[in-house]
Amino acid sequence: MHAALPQGEQEAGSIDTPSRPPRDLRRVDIHPNHWYPLAWSREVKRGKAHGVRFAGDPIVLVRTESGQVFALEDRCAHRQVPLSAGVVDGESIRCCYHGWTYDCTGRCTDIPYLGRERLPNGVRAYPCRETAGLIFVFTGDPALADQAKFPDLGSSADRAYKTRRFGGDVKCHYTFMHENLMDMNHQFLHRRQMGSMRARSVGRRRGDDWIEVDYTFAREAGKQPIGEALVFGQKRGAKPEDGQKDVMTIRTDYPYQTLKIRTKDETMVMDLWIAYVPLDAEQRTNRTFGLLSIRRPKVSFLLDAAWPLLIWFTERIFTEDRWIVEREQEAHDRQGADHNHEVFPVILELRSLLSEHGVPHGAGKSTGESTGETRRIHFIERVQELPTP
Amino acid sequence: MHAALPQGEQEAGSIDTPSRPPRDLRRVDIHPNHWYPLAWSREVKRGKAHGVRFAGDPIVLVRTESGQVFALEDRCAHRQVPLSAGVVDGESIRCCYHGWTYDCTGRCTDIPYLGRERLPNGVRAYPCRETAGLIFVFTGDPALADQAKFPDLGSSADRAYKTRRFGGDVKCHYTFMHENLMDMNHQFLHRRQMGSMRARSVGRRRGDDWIEVDYTFAREAGKQPIGEALVFGQKRGAKPEDGQKDVMTIRTDYPYQTLKIRTKDETMVMDLWIAYVPLDAEQRTNRTFGLLSIRRPKVSFLLDAAWPLLIWFTERIFTEDRWIVEREQEAHDRQGADHNHEVFPVILELRSLLSEHGVPHGAGKSTGESTGETRRIHFIERVQELPTP
Amino acid sequence: MHAALPQGEQEAGSIDTPSRPPRDLRRVDIHPNHWYPLAWSREVKRGKAHGVRFAGDPIVLVRTESGQVFALEDRCAHRQVPLSAGVVDGESIRCCYHGWTYDCTGRCTDIPYLGRERLPNGVRAYPCRETAGLIFVFTGDPALADQAKFPDLGSSADRAYKTRRFGGDVKCHYTFMHENLMDMNHQFLHRRQMGSMRARSVGRRRGDDWIEVDYTFAREAGKQPIGEALVFGQKRGAKPEDGQKDVMTIRTDYPYQTLKIRTKDETMVMDLWIAYVPLDAEQRTNRTFGLLSIRRPKVSFLLDAAWPLLIWFTERIFTEDRWIVEREQEAHDRQGADHNHEVFPVILELRSLLSEHGVPHGAGKSTGESTGETRRIHFIERVQELPTP
Repeated sequence: MHAALPQGEQEAGSIDTPSRPPRDLRRVDIHPNHWYPLAWSREVKRGKAHGVRFAGDPIVLVRTESGQVFALEDRCAHRQVPLSAGVVDGESIRCCYHGWTYDCTGRCTDIPYLGRERLPNGVRAYPCRETAGLIFVFTGDPALADQAKFPDLGSSADRAYKTRRFGGDVKCHYTFMHENLMDMNHQFLHRRQMGSMRARSVGRRRGDDWIEVDYTFAREAGKQPIGEALVFGQKRGAKPEDGQKDVMTIRTDYPYQTLKIRTKDETMVMDLWIAYVPLDAEQRTNRTFGLLSIRRPKVSFLLDAAWPLLIWFTERIFTEDRWIVEREQEAHDRQGADHNHEVFPVILELRSLLSEHGVPHGAGKSTGESTGETRRIHFIERVQELPTP
Repeated sequence: MHAALPQGEQEAGSIDTPSRPPRDLRRVDIHPNHWYPLAWSREVKRGKAHGVRFAGDPIVLVRTESGQVFALEDRCAHRQVPLSAGVVDGESIRCCYHGWTYDCTGRCTDIPYLGRERLPNGVRAYPCRETAGLIFVFTGDPALADQAKFPDLGSSADRAYKTRRFGGDVKCHYTFMHENLMDMNHQFLHRRQMGSMRARSVGRRRGDDWIEVDYTFAREAGKQPIGEALVFGQKRGAKPEDGQKDVMTIRTDYPYQTLKIRTKDETMVMDLWIAYVPLDAEQRTNRTFGLLSIRRPKVSFLLDAAWPLLIWFTERIFTEDRWIVEREQEAHDRQGADHNHEVFPVILELRSLLSEHGVPHGAGKSTGESTGETRRIHFIERVQELPTP
Repeated sequence: MHAALPQGEQEAGSIDTPSRPPRDLRRVDIHPNHWYPLAWSREVKRGKAHGVRFAGDPIVLVRTESGQVFALEDRCAHRQVPLSAGVVDGESIRCCYHGWTYDCTGRCTDIPYLGRERLPNGVRAYPCRETAGLIFVFTGDPALADQAKFPDLGSSADRAYKTRRFGGDVKCHYTFMHENLMDMNHQFLHRRQMGSMRARSVGRRRGDDWIEVDYTFAREAGKQPIGEALVFGQKRGAKPEDGQKDVMTIRTDYPYQTLKIRTKDETMVMDLWIAYVPLDAEQRTNRTFGLLSIRRPKVSFLLDAAWPLLIWFTERIFTEDRWIVEREQEAHDRQGADHNHEVFPVILELRSLLSEHGVPHGAGKSTGESTGETRRIHFIERVQELPTP
C-alpha cells in the first residue's frame, strides 16, 4: 500500500513549501456547465415524475406516457410546490395542487380556472439526455449545452464487459471523492478487504481539464482475496512480478473520474466511470453514480456466477470510502477551514485542477436560481429506452 | 374543480399587474390581541397542569382541584423551568424544582425556605376562557381582553348538529392555511377523495377585518363519493342542477375561518369553524383547531352510524392539505422569500387582509416576552366544565 | 425540604438588590487548566483507541499493547480524520486512512509512502493520568500540568467503602450541575424518592477556589424510604432528633464537586466525588463522572446485597436531576440570556465563584485549537492498570 514517489516529484511536492491552492477547496462549487447524471433511468417510471436535486436546485424528471424524459425546475410557478408530486398527463405534467399544466419546455399550457389567453410564464426547463441507464441534465447555461462535452461512459455499452451500476448519497463535498479515488495510498483503509498491498505511482500526465496517474501494485503479504481478484484483475498468476505488470490508471476528466486497469498486453480488464453530483446548495453532500465494467472471461458465465461476490466486495469498499470521506467533511465543518496537510504531488495537482475548474461558492447560482422570470429553453436528445440494470 | 372567474374580477386580478401586498406575507406575525384556542378542554385534566405554546411563548394551563382553568407564563420566576411540570396544590401551582408556589394571578405566594414578607414578583398571567370544549387565551395586551371580540363558534353548541373536533400540528405559517381553505380551485388536490369537481366562485364580499366568497360546485365526472356526501351535503338528488343550488361560503373573520354549506332553502347543512395558532416564534408551525358540525338528518342515528366514515374522510382531506401547505412552507424556506404568483382575485384580497391585520415579524413580542418584570393581570370568565368531546 | 436562611445571610442575599455576577454565567467556559476525567478506564481497552471530546476538541485516548494510556488530538495531521478509528501498532497509533503513524508524544514517526527524513509535524499531545478507574487529561497549557492540583478522589480507594461509578451525558452547561447539587432546597424535585424533607443550611465557608455549605435534614412527613436510607445515612434511629445530627457538606472545589455525609461522631457514611466535563464547544452539554462511596457496615455483605437497590435509587435521582437541568438549559437557549432570579445566598456565592474561575466563552480556545502547528509535549504519570469497576 505504499506509493513510492519518483525522485522529481518529491522535490516538487516539498513538505516544507507545499503548493497549496489559494482558496479553500471545500468552498469551490462544482461548475454547472456540464452534463450531470441526476437519476438512474429505472427510477423514472413511465407516466411518472421524479424529484431530484442539483446543488440545492430542485429538478423534476418527467417520463411522459410516450416514454420520453424531460427536466423542469421542480416548483410550480404558482405556489412553488413540487411538480414532482404532480400528475403526468400525456406529454405534460400537472401540478397536484390547483392543476396548472406544463409541457416539456416548461411553458404553462393550462390553468383550469383561467382563460388560456392569460396564462402566466412557466418554469425553467433543463436540457436532458438519457443514455446507459442514466438521465443526464445540463445544469448550467442552456445555450452551452449543445457544444458541451458529453461524457464517454466507458465500456458500459460494450458487450465484452459486464457492468454494475452502483452508488448512493455521500455526506461530503465532491472534491473529497476525487482525492479519495486518485490517492491509491489509501488502500490501507481497505486492508480488511484487500490485504497488504504496495502501490507505486509510475507516471503522471496533465491536460487543461484532466489529470491522470498510473500505478502498479505488489502484494506485501498474504494471498489475493477472491473479491479483489474479480474486480482488480481476474485470476492471474500469483507471482508478484506478474501482478506488477498490470497498470491502473486513474483520471479526473473534469468533472468526471475514471479508473482503468490494463494488463501488460493492453487488455482493459476493469473500467470504472464515476461522477459525484452535489445535492445541497452548500455542496456538502453528493450523490455518487458509478458504472463498473468488468471484462468477461472466455467462459463468460463464470463472471455471472461470481457477480454476487463482486457486488458484496464493491459495496464493502464503497462503504469504507464513504465513511472516511464523511469524516473528512465532518473535520472541515468543525475546523471551519481546510486544514489538510497534503504531501502527495498527484493530489496537490488534482486539487489545483479542481480549484481552477470549479466556481467560487455561490457564484454559479445566477443560472440556477428561479427568479420568477423563466427560461423556455429545452432539449431532448438521444433519448432512448434502455433495459434497466 | 374549476372556479371560473366572473368578468369584473378577471380585470381586477390582472396577471400582468398583480396587486401584491408590499411585504412578504410569511413574515407577517398573527396579531396577538385576539382570543386563541390553545388546548382542548379534555387535555387539561383536573388537578393537572398542561404546557402549550403561542408563537414561541410557553404558557401553562392549570386546572385546579375545583375545576377552574387559569393560564400563566410557563416559566418559574426562579430558575425558568416549566411550571407545567409542577404540582397543582388546591387552587395554586407549585414549581417542581424548589416548590415556589403561584396563584391564578401569577403572584408568588410561597417559597418554602424564605419568609413570606420577602416574596419576589411572580409570573405573567393570561386572560383565559373555556367554552365548547376549547380553552381560549388572550395572548396580547390583557387590558384589551374584555372588549375584544370573542369568536362565534358556529353550530357546535346547537343540538341540531353533530360536531367533530379535529386538528393537529402543521409545519407552516398560518397564512398558508387561510389561502388553502379559501381557494376552492385546490380541489384538484383532493381528486382521489372527491373525484372531478368544478368550483365556480359566484360572489365575494369584504368588510374591515373579514372577507367571504361563495362557491357553487358541479361534478364533472363520476359519482359522488359517500364520504363527501356526508360532509358536503348529505345525500341529495344526484342531478347536477340540484347540486349547484348548494352554496359554500368560506369566510376569513380575522383571525378565524369558517366554511358553511347552505342548501337552496337556506338550511345550513355543514358548518366548520377553524383556527390556526402559531406555535414557534418564527410562526412557521401552527396548531389547527377545527369544529366541524354536520346537521343531523331526520333519522338522527344515521349520522351517528356513518360517523366513523366521516372521520376517515375528513382525516384524509386534512392529511392532503397538511402535506401541501408544508411543501409551500418548505419552498418559502428554501427560496428565502415569497415567490408565489397568485392569479385568483379572492386570494389576492385575502392576502391583503392577512397582511393588514397582522404585525410585522417580531413586532408583537413586546407584550409576549418575559423580561423579569411580570404583570399581575388575570381574568377568568365564562369558565365552565364541558363534557369532553 | 426547606432550608431556613440564617439571619445574616438573608440580609446579604436581599431579593430587591440581588448581587448578580456581572456576566451571563452560561457563557463562562470551564477553565481548561485542570485535570478532567474524559473516560472510564474500562472504556479504553488494551490495543484500542477511544475518541472523546473536551469542549469541542476531539481527543483520542490510546491504550497501547503494553497497557499504557496516552492522549493525542483526535485528528490525523494529514487529512484530519479521527485517529480513534485507527490501528494501535505496538506503542503507536496508525491512522486508518493512509497509515500515518504517531507515537505517544504526537510525533509522526512513519508515512508509508514517504522517506523518513521528510516527515511532517505531528499532532498535539495531552498530559494524561489514569487512576481510580478514570482517565484524566490536562486539557489546558501542558506546561502547567505538573504543578496543577490533582483531585482528591475521596473514599474510592478506601476499602472501608464500596464505590459506585455512575454518570452520563447531560445536555446543559456545567454550571447548572453545580447549582443543582449545592442547593438542597431542590429536594422537592425528589419528593417521590425521598418523601417530604426539610433541609436547613447551618454553615457556610469559602476559600479562593472553593465554597462549602453544611445542611441538616428533618423528615416532615412519612417514613424514610429504604433507598434513601442506604445512600444518605444507613439505617439509624427514626427519631428526627437523631437524623438532624447528621451533617451533609457540599463543596465546590473548582472545578470538582463533593458531597459528604457525616454522623455526629464524625464518621463519614457517604462520600460523593463528581465532575462535569463540557463536551461541545458551546459547553451546552457535559459528561458527568461520579464516584459514590458508601461506608461498609459492620456486616459488610449487607451493603453488597442492597447494592442493586442503591443503584436503582441513585439512577432515579440522577434522572430527575438531569431532566430539570436540561429544562434550565432549554429556557436559557430560548430566552437567550440568564433570567434566573436567585434568592439563596449560598447559590449566589457559588455563581460568583464559578464566574470568577472560568474563562469568557471562547477565550480558552487558544490552547485547545489545532492550528497546524503542533506541540510535542507529553506526560504519562501514575499510569496503572486498575480493575475495572
